[in-house]
Amino acid sequence: MTQYTVSFQPHDKEVTVEEGQSLIRAAMDAGVHINASCGGEGICGKCRVIIESGEVEGGVSEQLSQQDQEKGYRLACLSKVKSDLTVRIPTESYIDAKVLNLQATARKTARIKQLNLEDLKEKGMFVPAVDKVYVEMPVPDGTDNEADVTRLVQALQKDHNEHRLEFDLSVIRKIPDVAREADFKVTTTIARPVREDGKNRIISVHAGDTTERNFAIAVDIGTTSIYGQVIDLISGEVLAQYGDFNSQISYGEDIISRIVYAEKGDGLEKLHSLVISTINSVIGKIIKKSGIDAEEISTITFAGNTTMTQLFLKVNPRYIRRSPYVPAANIYPAFKAVEIGLEVPDHVTALVYPQVSSYVGGDIVAGVMGSGMYQDEELTLYMDIGTNAEVVIGNKDWMVCAACSAGPAFEGGGIKLGMRAAEGAIEDFSVDPATLEPMNVTIGNVRPKGICGSGLITCVATMFEMSIIDNRGKFNRDLETDRIREVDGVYEYVLAWQDVSGIDRDVVLTEIDIDNLIRAKGAIYSGCRTLLSEVGLSINDLDRIIMAGGFGSYIDLEKTMTIGLLPEIDPEKVTFIGNGSLMGARMSALTNSIRRDVVATVNRMTNFELSETQSFMDNYIAALFLPHTEQGLFPKLKKRMDERRRQLGS
Amino acid sequence: MTQYTVSFQPHDKEVTVEEGQSLIRAAMDAGVHINASCGGEGICGKCRVIIESGEVEGGVSEQLSQQDQEKGYRLACLSKVKSDLTVRIPTESYIDAKVLNLQATARKTARIKQLNLEDLKEKGMFVPAVDKVYVEMPVPDGTDNEADVTRLVQALQKDHNEHRLEFDLSVIRKIPDVAREADFKVTTTIARPVREDGKNRIISVHAGDTTERNFAIAVDIGTTSIYGQVIDLISGEVLAQYGDFNSQISYGEDIISRIVYAEKGDGLEKLHSLVISTINSVIGKIIKKSGIDAEEISTITFAGNTTMTQLFLKVNPRYIRRSPYVPAANIYPAFKAVEIGLEVPDHVTALVYPQVSSYVGGDIVAGVMGSGMYQDEELTLYMDIGTNAEVVIGNKDWMVCAACSAGPAFEGGGIKLGMRAAEGAIEDFSVDPATLEPMNVTIGNVRPKGICGSGLITCVATMFEMSIIDNRGKFNRDLETDRIREVDGVYEYVLAWQDVSGIDRDVVLTEIDIDNLIRAKGAIYSGCRTLLSEVGLSINDLDRIIMAGGFGSYIDLEKTMTIGLLPEIDPEKVTFIGNGSLMGARMSALTNSIRRDVVATVNRMTNFELSETQSFMDNYIAALFLPHTEQGLFPKLKKRMDERRRQLGS
Repeated sequence: MTQYTVSFQPHDKEVTVEEGQSLIRAAMDAGVHINASCGGEGICGKCRVIIESGEVEGGVSEQLSQQDQEKGYRLACLSKVKSDLTVRIPTESYIDAKVLNLQATARKTARIKQLNLEDLKEKGMFVPAVDKVYVEMPVPDGTDNEADVTRLVQALQKDHNEHRLEFDLSVIRKIPDVAREADFKVTTTIARPVREDGKNRIISVHAGDTTERNFAIAVDIGTTSIYGQVIDLISGEVLAQYGDFNSQISYGEDIISRIVYAEKGDGLEKLHSLVISTINSVIGKIIKKSGIDAEEISTITFAGNTTMTQLFLKVNPRYIRRSPYVPAANIYPAFKAVEIGLEVPDHVTALVYPQVSSYVGGDIVAGVMGSGMYQDEELTLYMDIGTNAEVVIGNKDWMVCAACSAGPAFEGGGIKLGMRAAEGAIEDFSVDPATLEPMNVTIGNVRPKGICGSGLITCVATMFEMSIIDNRGKFNRDLETDRIREVDGVYEYVLAWQDVSGIDRDVVLTEIDIDNLIRAKGAIYSGCRTLLSEVGLSINDLDRIIMAGGFGSYIDLEKTMTIGLLPEIDPEKVTFIGNGSLMGARMSALTNSIRRDVVATVNRMTNFELSETQSFMDNYIAALFLPHTEQGLFPKLKKRMDERRRQLGS
Repeated sequence: MTQYTVSFQPHDKEVTVEEGQSLIRAAMDAGVHINASCGGEGICGKCRVIIESGEVEGGVSEQLSQQDQEKGYRLACLSKVKSDLTVRIPTESYIDAKVLNLQATARKTARIKQLNLEDLKEKGMFVPAVDKVYVEMPVPDGTDNEADVTRLVQALQKDHNEHRLEFDLSVIRKIPDVAREADFKVTTTIARPVREDGKNRIISVHAGDTTERNFAIAVDIGTTSIYGQVIDLISGEVLAQYGDFNSQISYGEDIISRIVYAEKGDGLEKLHSLVISTINSVIGKIIKKSGIDAEEISTITFAGNTTMTQLFLKVNPRYIRRSPYVPAANIYPAFKAVEIGLEVPDHVTALVYPQVSSYVGGDIVAGVMGSGMYQDEELTLYMDIGTNAEVVIGNKDWMVCAACSAGPAFEGGGIKLGMRAAEGAIEDFSVDPATLEPMNVTIGNVRPKGICGSGLITCVATMFEMSIIDNRGKFNRDLETDRIREVDGVYEYVLAWQDVSGIDRDVVLTEIDIDNLIRAKGAIYSGCRTLLSEVGLSINDLDRIIMAGGFGSYIDLEKTMTIGLLPEIDPEKVTFIGNGSLMGARMSALTNSIRRDVVATVNRMTNFELSETQSFMDNYIAALFLPHTEQGLFPKLKKRMDERRRQLGS
C-alpha cells in the first residue's frame, strides 16, 4: 500500500501513514492532540484542521461552513490521507506544544520476533516434522514378487539412505493401487522422529513425484478464538490464515466456567465436540483459501492452554480448578488427527504442545519455543496477556513461570463500559491538559461504545501523567471540568457524552474501573517480581521482554510502563510476537528441533503457584499503586513527571 | 473322562477308548475289521459281535433275535463302551487274521507340539506382549502438583525400574478419575516393545491392584472358519474357545472368489465388514464364556492367510491373484483394535502375524512360530492342509516354503460325493479282502451321506493295499463283487447302497474321485520334493513332520504315506498341532520373543512359486501314482505289499 508523510503544524511533527488512514489516527500516532470525543463520526465537530498542502478524501460535514471549507478546514476524523500532507492544527484544536512534547511517544511498530526461517535453514534446523521423498521402486516380475511395502522400504534404504522405517496401516491400504498408477514411482510422506535414533514413519504414499506439495496446518486453540494457518513446508510460508470464535464460548467466557460445564453430565463430550467443530470449520476455510488439496496435508500442530487442550483431547479438566491444580498430563503423545474427529485425511499426524502446569499451558510453551527464547542467552521476560496472564522468566539454562490471576480487565471484563477490541471500542486516547477534553480513537472510527484493554491502559496512564488521577487511581477532586463527576458516590470521567456516543448513555471511566486495572497490572508486575526474587534476581536484571497475545500488539509500550504493568526497560528491548501460541504451533511443524527440545524445555520450566508463594502477597500490595509504591523502580517516569511539574509550574 | 480297555478276540487286539465310545470305532482303532456299511445306525445288521465280558450300553436291534441277544450278541455300531470289555468277532464278521495283521496300525493319538509354557517360563521367555504393573503414586499436594501421568511415569521409574515409557491418549483420559478412585494406587497396563531398546507403552490404567487380571484374545481368521480364544496372560491358560463360519463364505468358498468379489464396487468394504462382524461375534461369545470383563483384555493377536489378512485390514487383495502375485505388505504394524471396528476397549492393541508371500500367509508363519520350528535344529517339514496346502521345510537357520495347488479334494471338493468333515461323512473305512464288503465309520454314527478328506485317504489307501485299485488308481476289473461297477464309462465302488445310505442314492467312490485325490497328494508331495531339491536335499533327509490344520488331526498317518501324500517316516517323528494359526496367535500373546523373532524368521523363509520352478512339473508327474512312480521312496509300503502278496499267495 502506498504510504504518505503527514506533517502536523505548528508542532512540526511528521508521521508516515498508509493511504486512506484517518487524520485523527495519524495525529495520535504523531503524538499530536486534537480534541475529538465522538470517535470519528463527525458528530462533535471539534477536530477541525486546515489542510495546507496535499489532498484528503472526505472531511467535510454540516459542522463546517462553506467558507471554512474553502479555507481548507476539514474534520480530522472524517479526512482520509490521499497524498503527502501538511496539516495545521488551529489554536482551538491544540494545546501547548511544550506539554505535547511530554505526551506519548509515537507507538513503536511491533517488532516480530520468532525463530527466523533463514536462520533455521542456515543452521540446518529447517527439518519439517513430516517430509516427502520421491522413490522409484523396482517393478515386480516373475523373479521378484516381494510385497509392495517391502519393495518401497528397500528402495528407500538403498537409493535414499533412509533407515529405521516403519509404516502405517493406511500405507498398506494405499500402496497397491498408488504404486501401479505411476509405474512404481511414488512419493512417500515420512513423519520424522523426535530423536535421531527414533523411527521414520511412512504415513502416506502418492503416485508420481509430489515432493513439492507438502503442507501443514497449525492451530491455536484459544479460550475465546481459534486461529488456523496453512503452512507450506517447502517454502516455510503461511499460505492462509483464519480465526473464528471458539464455539464453546456459549458455555462460558472463561476457563473456570468451561470446566464447571464440563463436569456436568455430557458436558465434556459437548465442549469437546464444539471445539472440534470450530477447528474443523477453520481448517475447511484455510484449506479452501490456500487452494491446496486436503490430501496434501501432512501434519497438524496444536497449541492451547491446559484447559483448552484437555477439552480438545476429551480429557476431563475437573482437577485443574481444584487445589492442588493437577492436570491429567503435561506431555501429549502424537496421534492420528482423525482419532479425535478432525476432518483431515487419515494419515495426518497431530502434535499437541506440552505444558508446564494447569495454568501455564501449551500456548505459553509454544511462544517460548517459537520465539526462540528457549535457546537464547539473554534474561528474558515472556508475557502473554489474554483472558489470563502468564509470565515466564529465564533463558536457555533455566526458566521460572507462573500464571497471574490478573482477571479479565485487559479484555474489558470488570470494567463498567469495558469491551473487547471490537468496533466502537476506544483504543487510544489523549486529553487536553488545560480543558481536560478528550481525543478518543475508536476501532472502526465509529462512535464510542466502550473501552478496550489498550484504551484503558492509555486512559489511565495519560490521566496519571496529567495528574488527573493520583497514584492510587483517584480523580483529582479539584479539577474544573464537568467531565469528572460523582455518581452514586463513585467518581468517573466522561469519555463521550451520550449525544456523541454509540450507546444510549455516556461512556465513562470510573474509579472502580481504574482500581480493577491497578489490581490486574499489580498481579502481573508482582508475579514477575516474585519469580525474579525467587531466583535471586531483580527487575533490573531483565535483558528484554517478549510480549505475546493479540493484546500485546495494540498497547502503547510506554503507557504500560507508566501504569506499572511492564517494568521500565528500553523500548528497543521489547518485542511483540502477536499470537505466540499460533507461531509456536507453526514453528513446530517447520522444525523438528522444537519437538526434540520442547520436552527438555518444559522440564526446565519451574512452575510457581503464586498463591502458595510467600513473597507474592507483599509484592502484590506494593504494586497496587501507579506505577508502584516504590517509585524508584520507574526512574524515567519519575523524571518525566518531575519535568512536567517543573514546566507547568514555570 | 473314564477310559476302558477293549480286547477283540480272536485277534487278541486291545485298544483303550473313552467311556461311551462305539464298538465299531473301537474296532477301527484297534485295526479290527467288522463288516458295517450303514455307518452305524443298525440298519444293515452286519456288525454282530459277542460281548464275552463287561458291559455295553445299547447294541440291541430288531436285527438280533431274542436268542442271540441272550447269547451276548450285539450290533457293534449301536454298542457303547461302559466298562472294560472282551469282544469276540464271530466268523461271519471278520476275515483272516493274517490279513488283518497287514491292516492299518491303530491311529496314533495326535501329539500336540507347541512352545511349552513351562519351557517358556524356565527360559524367561514367558513375557506376554502386554503386562500389568501395580504402582503407588505419591499423592499430590500444595508442594507437588505434577501432572497425573508424569506422576505415574515417575513412580514407575523410581519404584519399578521401568524406563523408556510412553503413553496413549486414552491413558490421559482415564487417569484423573482412576487415580483418585483408589488414592493414587493404580494398575498400569504396559505394552512391551518388540526390542529391548524399544518403548514401553502405557495403554491403560485401572484403580487399585488388578495385576492378576490380564487377558488376551487370539484369533485365527480362516477362509472357512474363524476361531477365537481367551487367554489368561498370568497362567498362560486358554479360558474359552469358540469357532464360527467366516460370514464372507456367502461370497465364495475359496480365496479366489473372495478376491474377485472384493474387486467389485464396494466388495472390499463388504467383505471387510463381514469378517469384522464374525470376529466381533466370536469375541463376544468367548468373553462371555470365560467370564472376564472386556475391560480386562489387554491385547488381541491375529493370524490368517494373506487374502484373509488383507480383507480383515481392508486392503484390496486384487494383486494377490494376478501374476506375479504381489501382496500389499508382508509385515503389519501394531494398531489399535478399535481402529478397524473391533468391539473391544479402545486401549487394546492388535497384532497381526506377518506373512511370507501371497500364498504363504500369516497362518503358516504362526504355525512355524507357535510350534517352535523356527528355533529347532532338526530338518522339519511343516505342512498345513486346509482349503489350500502350504509347506515349509527347514530349521532354525533357513526355511523354504511354497503353496501347493492341491485343490479342495481334502475338503471334499471335486469328489463326486465329497463333503466336509460333518455328520454323515465317512471318515474311516476298511474292507474285507475276501468279500470286498466295507466297514464305514461316519461322523456322528449316522447313515453315510458322503466322504470327507480323511475317509477318502483311508479308502484309497486301503483299496490300494488290497490291490482293489492299482497304482494309477484304477479298479481291478477282475474282482468279483457287485460293489465295483461301471456307470457311464466310469468305474466306481459302492461304499453304501441307497437302502443304508443317508441320501437318496448309493454313496460311491469313482475313479475320477481317486484321480483328483492323486493329483492333490501329488501336488503336495512334489511340492515338498521340489523345495528339498532346490536346497540340495532329499525326502530322506527329513527329521520330522509337523502337520497342522483340522484335517491333520483326523487322518490316518500310515495311510497318508500309503497314498504318497506324506513321505515315509517313522510315525513317532510326526506331530499334529491342530490349528497352527490359532496356536501361533495365542503364543505371540504369551511371549514377546515370538514378536521379536518373527520378522527375522519371515525374512529367512524363502518363498518358491512352484509354477515358476523348473523341476516342479517333473516331480509332479512322477507323483501321480500310488504311492509314487519311484516305489523306492516308500520302501516300507513296498515290503508290506510284497509280504501281503506272498501271504495271500501261500
